[in-house]
Amino acid sequence: MFQPLDPLLHSELRLAVVSLLISVEEAEFPYIKEQTGATAGNLSVQLDKLSTAGYINVEKTFKGKKPCTLCRMTDKGRKAFEAYVEALKSYLNVT
Amino acid sequence: MFQPLDPLLHSELRLAVVSLLISVEEAEFPYIKEQTGATAGNLSVQLDKLSTAGYINVEKTFKGKKPCTLCRMTDKGRKAFEAYVEALKSYLNVT
Repeated sequence: MFQPLDPLLHSELRLAVVSLLISVEEAEFPYIKEQTGATAGNLSVQLDKLSTAGYINVEKTFKGKKPCTLCRMTDKGRKAFEAYVEALKSYLNVT
Repeated sequence: MFQPLDPLLHSELRLAVVSLLISVEEAEFPYIKEQTGATAGNLSVQLDKLSTAGYINVEKTFKGKKPCTLCRMTDKGRKAFEAYVEALKSYLNVT
């Protein structure tokens, strides 16, 4: 009856990150930090987890001489998010 | 932008329990166990947490001589679930 929920996405901060990234082409670390209200340390850890899972792509680059971390969703991440939303419906479609 | 998710409900098994209970008047332990696929031990722990939070009511009673554990949602639990679903929409309403 209940479909399993991807533990990588069923986490408040990781879900917020994916929710942000899914609606944009790419986003920089400070923007994600500001939008999610996460600490830099925690956000780094969660981005690493999503990146290791292949759900997002993290590119370390430079803006002039300033380091810049760019994140974007992968196709795998998009599919995982869609599957997560579908699975979640089995828990929420009640009255 | 993102609303906080009630950690009591943002847990796969507790969410399944609440999702079940919200659509019925009451449910017995074995039925919840079967529907969620949880182990008896884990289910007991999660029911306790929901009960301590005042989200569900757990009544230990008897069916003849057989012990029977009856669970039902409280008004507080229903409101918490509604708030959780609303908060969740801030993460899912994207495309």
